[in-house]
Amino acid sequence: MPSPDLSTFRAQFPALANKIYFNYGGQGPLSDRAFEAIVSTERQIQTDGPFNGKINAALSANSGVTRSAIADLLGVPETTISLTEDVTVGCNIALWGLAWQAGDQIVLTDCEHPGVMAAVAEIARRFDLTVTIAPILNILNDGDPVAAIVDRLTPRTRLVIVSHLLWNTGSVLPLAEINRACHQFPTETGQTIRVLVDAAQSVGTLPLDLDAIDVDFYAFTGHKWLCGAAGVGGLYVSEAARQDLAPTFIGWRSIETDAVGNPTDWKPNGRRYEVATSAYPLYAGLREAIAVHDEWGTATERYAAICDRAFRLWSGLHAIDGVDCWSMSPPRSGLVSFTHVGGQHQTLVNQLEARGLMLRTILHPDCVRACVHYFTTEDEIDQLLTAIADFSRSTSR
Amino acid sequence: MPSPDLSTFRAQFPALANKIYFNYGGQGPLSDRAFEAIVSTERQIQTDGPFNGKINAALSANSGVTRSAIADLLGVPETTISLTEDVTVGCNIALWGLAWQAGDQIVLTDCEHPGVMAAVAEIARRFDLTVTIAPILNILNDGDPVAAIVDRLTPRTRLVIVSHLLWNTGSVLPLAEINRACHQFPTETGQTIRVLVDAAQSVGTLPLDLDAIDVDFYAFTGHKWLCGAAGVGGLYVSEAARQDLAPTFIGWRSIETDAVGNPTDWKPNGRRYEVATSAYPLYAGLREAIAVHDEWGTATERYAAICDRAFRLWSGLHAIDGVDCWSMSPPRSGLVSFTHVGGQHQTLVNQLEARGLMLRTILHPDCVRACVHYFTTEDEIDQLLTAIADFSRSTSR
Repeated sequence: MPSPDLSTFRAQFPALANKIYFNYGGQGPLSDRAFEAIVSTERQIQTDGPFNGKINAALSANSGVTRSAIADLLGVPETTISLTEDVTVGCNIALWGLAWQAGDQIVLTDCEHPGVMAAVAEIARRFDLTVTIAPILNILNDGDPVAAIVDRLTPRTRLVIVSHLLWNTGSVLPLAEINRACHQFPTETGQTIRVLVDAAQSVGTLPLDLDAIDVDFYAFTGHKWLCGAAGVGGLYVSEAARQDLAPTFIGWRSIETDAVGNPTDWKPNGRRYEVATSAYPLYAGLREAIAVHDEWGTATERYAAICDRAFRLWSGLHAIDGVDCWSMSPPRSGLVSFTHVGGQHQTLVNQLEARGLMLRTILHPDCVRACVHYFTTEDEIDQLLTAIADFSRSTSR
Repeated sequence: MPSPDLSTFRAQFPALANKIYFNYGGQGPLSDRAFEAIVSTERQIQTDGPFNGKINAALSANSGVTRSAIADLLGVPETTISLTEDVTVGCNIALWGLAWQAGDQIVLTDCEHPGVMAAVAEIARRFDLTVTIAPILNILNDGDPVAAIVDRLTPRTRLVIVSHLLWNTGSVLPLAEINRACHQFPTETGQTIRVLVDAAQSVGTLPLDLDAIDVDFYAFTGHKWLCGAAGVGGLYVSEAARQDLAPTFIGWRSIETDAVGNPTDWKPNGRRYEVATSAYPLYAGLREAIAVHDEWGTATERYAAICDRAFRLWSGLHAIDGVDCWSMSPPRSGLVSFTHVGGQHQTLVNQLEARGLMLRTILHPDCVRACVHYFTTEDEIDQLLTAIADFSRSTSR
């Protein structure tokens, strides 16, 4: 039974009131407080602006505070953060900004998101690069994904792309080890192999200290586990990696200008990768969403609660006939992927959605993914398990 | 005196209630109706989603209806429209997607926005291109800007960049003529010279029929003259120009995928230039903002009213000692730029802002810009003229 505190906490999220939600990896629910921050910022823009010296200064300050809140969460200086529209834009900034030479190699795992795969394919086409897939999916339970990646490095490798927390299986990759191995690998030109991390699922899930694990590029979004509104994400670029990364999509936010408005230089910090006018009220919403989490507990406490809920779900799924969890060991994240012996995964998801239980299918590997957050209740998990068991019984008849 | 109808119409815009607003070229005010559309879409997302089959289908349909509303406004098929975060992103999509060869030339006018200038400089650096400035600023009153552009074309010209309506002086360039001249110009490779139009100021001002004037790329925003929220704009790419333009920033919205989620092709239409998760409620807001305009009158009627208000402002400025309008002839847009003999333009703008009158300085040329929309009142214009005359008297003493 949920504690009264948890009920009160959950009451802040209108989306949780009328359904049983298991798709935090798709999008997190927006709290009333985050929504109010968005609405009141838009009202302030209309009252004071929408465009003049006063409101422009306020919105610029607002952006700075949001970069700071994100930086605190990631364990990095505020100057390393760029605000983006979403995680994929952040990945694209890192992908397109390197000084590609024909014959350079990109290594990415076989668990990356289709959007990132498509961007990599287009970059390879344009610059005549080699793309190598490091197959890790089938060794996640008992193999060494770091070796699977390192074995594909060559003296021409320029970039490695990994997800910190895999969107399809919920596995956590040993990012510190991957960074270390890539950074130490000798290259033909002496350039450091950079690692681009798709952090769509890890930000808001894992306690993070990016400085400590020598991250180069870390692209994330505010609208999944952080429970901000859709339309704001960010990119961390380390001071060292920034030297290798030119801005690609460029606008007035990227540059310094002289007295007659001519561009003179990039912004000295992560703002060089930001472009132009954005939905600024959403920045305030993301900041408030982060504050809501911090009031519940520390990042470490939240992660422990996520793993606790995930363990209950994973154990329960194991006990259902015809259901197999992808992960052989207790989950280390809130994403729990499983298969059903009948293979009718979309049918299962549709039937659950009709009963008010929201999860999704994954195509690669072919499975169903259920996500639990730290505020998921035991009762929700038990209802999901019951519904899946019902489905399993009905299809095995 | 404003007509009662105008008062009622203006009452829809909270931003107009407590100030006298002359910066539509910076950002337009958001109507209550547009704001409500945003708020109610966000509420729907939280009630039905935030992420599942039902809400995802609704948001996808919502995006389609917004592309349609924009397409109607521009006189083009819906399939040619891509939704973007802002006008600058649209320009970047066109800039980075061409198959650049070392030695290719970009021609742009000396009136383009610093953000676009910076993007062009970076592309030229990366691909070893030639950039040629076509100087039009000083011939806008009595010269031939088309000739100034065409005179700079060479057999290696690949792209010409112009604003349809100049953000600094309010001049309207003869876009049909520019397109025709560029498209007919013989190139070394036989490739058509493409024209990228920065339409930040023209969309929502000018009646448009892009198909009729053979436009290639037309990048615009919803948050200026259209009075949508900041954070949504778009890009028109003609069917012919699409053949020349590869997607650059790429995500799940750009691609088709197969049964196991692998990318197989670009989306067959303008959606190939869209990336990933955006602030979808703002799409509904922009649609509602367009509907508000359409209820007031046709695009032609609105443009006539804009020119009428601009004429009153321009004539009145002419009559103030020490003030010179940039344009020698009656304005053909809502942007009226002027200089003051003392040159203290920022001081003037600051003093006006302190009195509740919102306009801005421009650095190139050094001037002040006041914008009128079709719903600007004669009384507002007269108050601005009085305030500027006061300033002029006080500084000439």
